[in-house]
Amino acid sequence: MGRTHFTEAELDFLTRTRVGRLATADAAAQPHVIPVVFATDGCNLYVPVDEQPKRFRPRELKRVRNLLQNPKVAFIVDRYDEDWSQLEWLLVRGMGSLVENGERHIIGVRLLEEKYAQYERMPLKNRPLIVITPSQVTGWKAI
Amino acid sequence: MGRTHFTEAELDFLTRTRVGRLATADAAAQPHVIPVVFATDGCNLYVPVDEQPKRFRPRELKRVRNLLQNPKVAFIVDRYDEDWSQLEWLLVRGMGSLVENGERHIIGVRLLEEKYAQYERMPLKNRPLIVITPSQVTGWKAI
Repeated sequence: MGRTHFTEAELDFLTRTRVGRLATADAAAQPHVIPVVFATDGCNLYVPVDEQPKRFRPRELKRVRNLLQNPKVAFIVDRYDEDWSQLEWLLVRGMGSLVENGERHIIGVRLLEEKYAQYERMPLKNRPLIVITPSQVTGWKAI
Repeated sequence: MGRTHFTEAELDFLTRTRVGRLATADAAAQPHVIPVVFATDGCNLYVPVDEQPKRFRPRELKRVRNLLQNPKVAFIVDRYDEDWSQLEWLLVRGMGSLVENGERHIIGVRLLEEKYAQYERMPLKNRPLIVITPSQVTGWKAI
């Protein structure tokens, strides 16, 4: 399947980048994609399942329903610039799991709360996370 | 399936936004997602299939191979802001077709060349486009 680890430069890119996009697909292979915040422990990616409170029913979210039907996901971070020689992206394909407690949940919550001060006012510890385990990492630069 | 047209505000958002992300999936429902430039005629979205010249074999690109196996796509434009009350996105699910000539190709090339001055130095007219026909448009704002 190709490499599953990140290079130092890719980890730096992941750490600096504030938003990524997560693609899922339902059992009929209809893709879905949304912007997400994320954090990494160097191997896996952690994505919170958070929505505005009035709509907060995690298992009804399309991304979560897709994941429960089909755990295959794709995740991208990229940098857009009007100088197209500066374009850059990092694509991670892998498996996504919904995690509601346990060690991986604790790690993910800590990493996300460290990266995003916004979570000080809306703690993540009672919310599920999506943990993405890479099966294929692909980096691309224009030059 | 939900609405298939864009509101005025959504069209404005699409026109102002310089990069979107296109998700496809192969026949085994493995998603793929990449950043893309795009233009709209108000109904459909047009995405060029362009790569650096040394790698330019359009039908070998994963996004194109997926599309030929499974025409279902998802496309997103979004605005990230550290003030999460300002977050906004627009998701388009629909069918993608690879178009290499004819009226839709001419329209798409013109719209992309009008939106992106970068194409002055690398004309699109001999390159395929992906035309996305929306089957479901979903807008989201944090507030």
